[in-house]
Amino acid sequence: ELSDSGIGVAAIIAQADEDEMALLLESLPIEQRLSLWQTLPDHKKLDILIAMRGDPREVLVRATEPEQWDKLFVGIEAEDLLELADSLPEELVERAYAAMDRVQKQYFTEANQYPEEQVGHWITHDYLVLPLNARVREGIRLIRREMPRHTDVIFLINRSGHFSEAVPISKLYALPEHVPLVDVALHDFPVINATDEGQKVAKDVLFSSYGALPVIDENRKLIGRIDVTTASELSEEYYERQLMASAGMDENEDLFSPVRRSAKARAIWLGINLLTALLASAFIGMFEATLQQVVALAVLMPVVASMGGIAGSQTLTLIIRGLALKQVTPANTRVLLSKELKVGGLNGIIWAVVIGIVAFAWFGDPLLGVVIAIAIFLNIVAAAFAGVFVPVILAKLKIDPALSGSVILTTVTDIVGFVAFLGLGTMLLL
Amino acid sequence: ELSDSGIGVAAIIAQADEDEMALLLESLPIEQRLSLWQTLPDHKKLDILIAMRGDPREVLVRATEPEQWDKLFVGIEAEDLLELADSLPEELVERAYAAMDRVQKQYFTEANQYPEEQVGHWITHDYLVLPLNARVREGIRLIRREMPRHTDVIFLINRSGHFSEAVPISKLYALPEHVPLVDVALHDFPVINATDEGQKVAKDVLFSSYGALPVIDENRKLIGRIDVTTASELSEEYYERQLMASAGMDENEDLFSPVRRSAKARAIWLGINLLTALLASAFIGMFEATLQQVVALAVLMPVVASMGGIAGSQTLTLIIRGLALKQVTPANTRVLLSKELKVGGLNGIIWAVVIGIVAFAWFGDPLLGVVIAIAIFLNIVAAAFAGVFVPVILAKLKIDPALSGSVILTTVTDIVGFVAFLGLGTMLLL
Repeated sequence: ELSDSGIGVAAIIAQADEDEMALLLESLPIEQRLSLWQTLPDHKKLDILIAMRGDPREVLVRATEPEQWDKLFVGIEAEDLLELADSLPEELVERAYAAMDRVQKQYFTEANQYPEEQVGHWITHDYLVLPLNARVREGIRLIRREMPRHTDVIFLINRSGHFSEAVPISKLYALPEHVPLVDVALHDFPVINATDEGQKVAKDVLFSSYGALPVIDENRKLIGRIDVTTASELSEEYYERQLMASAGMDENEDLFSPVRRSAKARAIWLGINLLTALLASAFIGMFEATLQQVVALAVLMPVVASMGGIAGSQTLTLIIRGLALKQVTPANTRVLLSKELKVGGLNGIIWAVVIGIVAFAWFGDPLLGVVIAIAIFLNIVAAAFAGVFVPVILAKLKIDPALSGSVILTTVTDIVGFVAFLGLGTMLLL
Repeated sequence: ELSDSGIGVAAIIAQADEDEMALLLESLPIEQRLSLWQTLPDHKKLDILIAMRGDPREVLVRATEPEQWDKLFVGIEAEDLLELADSLPEELVERAYAAMDRVQKQYFTEANQYPEEQVGHWITHDYLVLPLNARVREGIRLIRREMPRHTDVIFLINRSGHFSEAVPISKLYALPEHVPLVDVALHDFPVINATDEGQKVAKDVLFSSYGALPVIDENRKLIGRIDVTTASELSEEYYERQLMASAGMDENEDLFSPVRRSAKARAIWLGINLLTALLASAFIGMFEATLQQVVALAVLMPVVASMGGIAGSQTLTLIIRGLALKQVTPANTRVLLSKELKVGGLNGIIWAVVIGIVAFAWFGDPLLGVVIAIAIFLNIVAAAFAGVFVPVILAKLKIDPALSGSVILTTVTDIVGFVAFLGLGTMLLL
């Protein structure tokens, strides 16, 4: 079966790391995915599951025999289980929890005090730490014993466990052993609050020029760190969520999820859009008599709707990015709106004229040209208005504008466009 | 003027780094942006410009007096100029080039041998390197002298300058000074080819568990490195490009670009969409006689178009992500298409029935219900088909499916939807 896929699967598996294996498994149709899964060595399976997206991972979770899990859970750590928990039935989460040692159990419990949106949920504990009064000698001893990835500093904590400063490891080479570490420590080393939101922290870490930053709780106690790898994962998930949300999907969507499951997930979005389309139809329905007499209006309706929708989605996209970068604030919304209205006004005039002429040339009726020109202008300006306000208001209501912004925007531009076009048509063409 | 913005600007500036300043400047309307720019110290300006997006940066470039540039270009390095070059007039690029030393000039020329899509254009040169026969003693001497950010290994090169292996810096502490570095080197250390594409490399680096990976040219010669910070920048730009492309915009778009410039940039996209909307109208125009007699068809047209468009964009988004992750390949396209057709078929049936009943209830004509039900079904299935094939074909033609995919898709679903709906209406309702 696997040979069907035309890839030298065996060769890839032999040297693939868990991320590559995860991508490969996700790209295989369910049956092939399951048969590849069976051939993988048990000691690799947990890491591969962790690296996979939610939906394709669940396919493999369901296909794993109950008695196999004890083998897979050997050596599982708190951060592994935190990553997997959403895809595992409650009973398996408990078995995994039971398989962990005391320290990992505590990490797991602590992390679960923070919701998934907060970075406290995603901290790791593989950092180097020493008390504030430690000397170079102890620093070197620590490094010789273990060296976690992305570690370029040793964190120093005071007697209460509060994060205090950080010592660059590279400095230790140049110093006599008895020198106190605080003498060469970086003061004002950047710290992260456990309650900070994931994407913000990801940027802070990735652009900090350190391999990892310390995470503190509300009492300034050092509780973990976020390294660049975790930060990249948070960032990538954020962007994938944005991209998928624009089509009403979720970043965990499986390329090969079972048909019924996939159809169900998408049906909701189709249903919401149906309601908005029916709303637009209801407004068109108010002008049945006009449409019957001037059928050219019916022919040109998609042009009015489309121009408003496109213009609006341009403003919307710009504002959504600005909100994500914290660049759109109450302080500049008014100026931004005025600029977008001017851009809309200018494009509104240009395309109103062009489309007016096209409509006149097509149907030979100058008044029809005037009607569609005014409707296009009004709709593009309304689109600019909605493009600014819809995402700003959604963000204020804590609703993700990337998900629902475009549905609401299109509803506005459809209704404004149809009412303006058919209303003007009724007044001027009958 | 600045006090208008309601932000404690002075306080922010005092301790902001260049990335924060860049974000702040981008978020200010042009006039305020320029007056803040004038107050900034010259020695910070170059780094801030580098951190900014293209369009907002150009506003500041144009406002900078010709005689000021010599001050700004003091100490400019090859990678700075590579970042800025697109925003500077040719004459300023030459002045900046002239201000660099011999080594930086050579780096600049070498990087320009690779186009912006290839990672060779974005390499940096602040890595630690030693010959293959060096000993621990020399390694420690090197680290004491300088320690570039995100450096956890020393690269070893052979006599021809070819990258050979890498030595983890942490190992040096535990070893006697005379030990050859090769004895503790990592073989098979991951390397990057200068011609590799940016987003792929970004992932390789960010998930490598090293702070940076070596970049080699086609002769295996070590020519630079990509560290996690550069990788994050490449990755972020990639995702921003994708998000903005979906609305026909470019990731450099300025929140406050001058109205005329912004209107012009967006007009092209509106024009392209107008052509596709007119094409849809032309198809509707073929059924003028039908529309005149059955005006309910005109009223319900948006429902048919909308359901096809939404269903198609869901498939499209899934396939675009799959193409970006290299998960959609010729090997699995057929299975993927069959799955998407089944999902489309299932949702097609469900929504055909629902909408058929709604149309019947609304207009009291059972045949109208049948007509719209069949049209919805056909359109949702066609949308699944186009949602798979449009991006796959675009990717094959090396056209970014994130930019043009949705225009083409909507054209297909509009035309299929209208022709099916009005064509069936003509056959069954007249």
